[in-house]
Amino acid sequence: MANFSGKPAQAALDKFKNRNIMDISSLSKEDLQTIMQTAAYYDQALAEHKRLYDMDGKIMAALFFEPSTRTRLSFESAMERLGGKVITVTETPAAQTSSTAKGETLYDSIRVVNYYVDVIACRSPIKGARFEIERAATVPYINGGDGSGEHPTQALLDVYTIYKEKGGLDGWTYAICGDLKYGRAPHSLLDALCKFDVKKIILASPEELRMPRENIDKIKDLGIEIEECFDLDYAAKNADVIYMTRVQRERFSSVEEYERNKNIFIMTQRHVDMFKEGAIILHPLPRVNEIAVEVDDYPGAAYFRQAGNGVPTRMALLALVTGSVK
Amino acid sequence: MANFSGKPAQAALDKFKNRNIMDISSLSKEDLQTIMQTAAYYDQALAEHKRLYDMDGKIMAALFFEPSTRTRLSFESAMERLGGKVITVTETPAAQTSSTAKGETLYDSIRVVNYYVDVIACRSPIKGARFEIERAATVPYINGGDGSGEHPTQALLDVYTIYKEKGGLDGWTYAICGDLKYGRAPHSLLDALCKFDVKKIILASPEELRMPRENIDKIKDLGIEIEECFDLDYAAKNADVIYMTRVQRERFSSVEEYERNKNIFIMTQRHVDMFKEGAIILHPLPRVNEIAVEVDDYPGAAYFRQAGNGVPTRMALLALVTGSVK
Amino acid sequence: MANFSGKPAQAALDKFKNRNIMDISSLSKEDLQTIMQTAAYYDQALAEHKRLYDMDGKIMAALFFEPSTRTRLSFESAMERLGGKVITVTETPAAQTSSTAKGETLYDSIRVVNYYVDVIACRSPIKGARFEIERAATVPYINGGDGSGEHPTQALLDVYTIYKEKGGLDGWTYAICGDLKYGRAPHSLLDALCKFDVKKIILASPEELRMPRENIDKIKDLGIEIEECFDLDYAAKNADVIYMTRVQRERFSSVEEYERNKNIFIMTQRHVDMFKEGAIILHPLPRVNEIAVEVDDYPGAAYFRQAGNGVPTRMALLALVTGSVK
Repeated sequence: MANFSGKPAQAALDKFKNRNIMDISSLSKEDLQTIMQTAAYYDQALAEHKRLYDMDGKIMAALFFEPSTRTRLSFESAMERLGGKVITVTETPAAQTSSTAKGETLYDSIRVVNYYVDVIACRSPIKGARFEIERAATVPYINGGDGSGEHPTQALLDVYTIYKEKGGLDGWTYAICGDLKYGRAPHSLLDALCKFDVKKIILASPEELRMPRENIDKIKDLGIEIEECFDLDYAAKNADVIYMTRVQRERFSSVEEYERNKNIFIMTQRHVDMFKEGAIILHPLPRVNEIAVEVDDYPGAAYFRQAGNGVPTRMALLALVTGSVK
Repeated sequence: MANFSGKPAQAALDKFKNRNIMDISSLSKEDLQTIMQTAAYYDQALAEHKRLYDMDGKIMAALFFEPSTRTRLSFESAMERLGGKVITVTETPAAQTSSTAKGETLYDSIRVVNYYVDVIACRSPIKGARFEIERAATVPYINGGDGSGEHPTQALLDVYTIYKEKGGLDGWTYAICGDLKYGRAPHSLLDALCKFDVKKIILASPEELRMPRENIDKIKDLGIEIEECFDLDYAAKNADVIYMTRVQRERFSSVEEYERNKNIFIMTQRHVDMFKEGAIILHPLPRVNEIAVEVDDYPGAAYFRQAGNGVPTRMALLALVTGSVK
Repeated sequence: MANFSGKPAQAALDKFKNRNIMDISSLSKEDLQTIMQTAAYYDQALAEHKRLYDMDGKIMAALFFEPSTRTRLSFESAMERLGGKVITVTETPAAQTSSTAKGETLYDSIRVVNYYVDVIACRSPIKGARFEIERAATVPYINGGDGSGEHPTQALLDVYTIYKEKGGLDGWTYAICGDLKYGRAPHSLLDALCKFDVKKIILASPEELRMPRENIDKIKDLGIEIEECFDLDYAAKNADVIYMTRVQRERFSSVEEYERNKNIFIMTQRHVDMFKEGAIILHPLPRVNEIAVEVDDYPGAAYFRQAGNGVPTRMALLALVTGSVK
């Protein structure tokens, strides 16, 4: 992947106009590159404190039917940085499913919001809600997470962070660590990494929380080398990019299993000392205790910068789908 | 009523400056026409994606002491479309009545908000709260609904929708259907329709939920023909404009009464097949099951467009009362 | 203190750039004067309905981890009056302390928000949270209240109100009334008044709710005359500035003590009749019943105007710490 400079060519931009951002798997490698290049373009503008007018006069609906402060605030900041305005819902509506007997359907809600805004960012607690929203939306829609379904903007900012921190995504060894069974972020990241020429992927998890077999097979079919392990040490020693996620007590079948594993997946200075030169640590946040605070001082501890990259990444998406990149 | 083109004459605009929008009955037919003409003027601007600056530098307070996402979002969108900004309260304050021993009175709250904004849109769960707000407000105030009291902006967008869909309000047969006893929207719509030369008004409701006698007498006194019926079929066959509302279980005196009525007031394709040519269906939303989803495909199913008309209607009101129509 | 005209000298403005506003005691008298002069400068602009662009393109985070509608709305209005934009959190996050085992620390939250905005206004229910926020913040931070800790913007708007209503702060007799033991506002006001040449300070409280000894000693050490009394009458007769606060039932050790005191600290027309000429009444609001509604008509009843002064005062702070005074 070449270094990006300036905004993408008009033809690449035009491909995004009026598209919905539903999930990672429906984005091609070229799409990812356009998004990253646009994100880099806006990131540069932010660094230079440029006053942007790309979305001047436009309105975004931030519909958060489930709390997700970080995602919401970075969408809102992104829209405002582009010169646009925001209307926000954080209340949980009486009903959020289309099959409900009481209250308004999500379909009806979106049919109405279409008239209020130019673009919709929506998070729902319900897996698959993105399909109902897509059916109702007449303005572009960006999926801000639909339950245990998809959360594409998280994966996109993860990928953009790797590009920014490491100069590109090809050729690296990646370690994805923690709860690989239930974690939405690891699955989406895998979907994204598959599109690049990665060197190897290490999957580090408790035995009970391994990446599902079908996800692993999908990667192997693409010819990507994959290794599984059951502690953090191997990942720490061998990876260029370490993606940490939280291992939650309630995911284990027994207290014993939890007790046996709980400290194994906490990253400390001991791990940092094993790192390859230039290794970086990512985390989708919130972090609880799975990365010791002492690790924050390591220059490659990129998780706060990663959260910050949510702004240029979401600026790119908002401007692309509304055809507003100026 | 003539077709509107361009914005109203300055003299008509000037009549609204610094007025409060309290209820429908305090608006004259001429007032309604000024509001509709201004709404049509902004509607045209929205259709042309014009960037408006009419309320540039001004701030609206959206005080929603009771949840009403649709009303709130369309007020906020309206203000932002006019180039203005918004501050929002959706929390329920500890106390909302003026007679309370604990917490701040609504009067005190509004006295303070006056200093923060240029216009107030307020919804309260308390019937008659509009009088206390009017007493406290030194900036123009638009009633966004006060309990079972009044909700004038809903009636205004209803009227604007009829104008837009049917080219005017005079000469049509109207059917108002559902819960006519407790429903706030039917009462306000009647108050508005009374000001026009309507042909006839059909009131279709369960027997237990008939329009109160005094409301009917008021219409008859104006010489408007009125008919009552107890199912939807007569309304479907004879009306040009059908206004649907929800019939709630808890409004009935017995389970038997509810069971006997519950399906009679659900509009289906069977009713659509009986319609006069060009008939339209309105509904204040949210719709639960009182209009079958299959009806959405009927070209005259105007309820989503109606909700969308909340934006130009509220733009008109915000700009009129602050003297900002440019 | 001289009358302010125009904005402060550049050297005075420069002293505030990138500073955090933590508490009153860390502000010098010169700092207070710069803040008041800047507030007066913006107040004048508001009175002239000037459209300001001082913070055009900038974003403020309003992080309210505890409800405080008045403070939040006036911060938001202030930012918008300066041409800036706002993103808001009013949800209570799962965890708000740094010592928590579950959820994200306040430190981590702020580390992320740094990337979204240009300035942070934050209110927390936790005493001392300002120190953790200051440690994490890389953009300027204004303390909007941290539990029973500090609430400097309230004290600053109090001081600005006295300046505006009385032409200055020196030479007056002040009465601070109500709950002087637990009340945060009285303590901060004392911290601020200490920096001026006040004539005398009267402390009027129930015996059980006297100002703590150490606070009184601090004032006496500065050579300021101080008097304590246990009812409102002495304060009403002798003060130029009367600062009322609420006496809450739950602060008393017994029902008898409460019953004995509850009516003594309610200001009525009887007190107003005793006032010196030109005396003013302040109150941080919300007012419950501790000032009778009849008192609102007294021209020196300045508490609503005082709340309104929250806007120019917070405009001054936002613009000063971000180096945006134009």
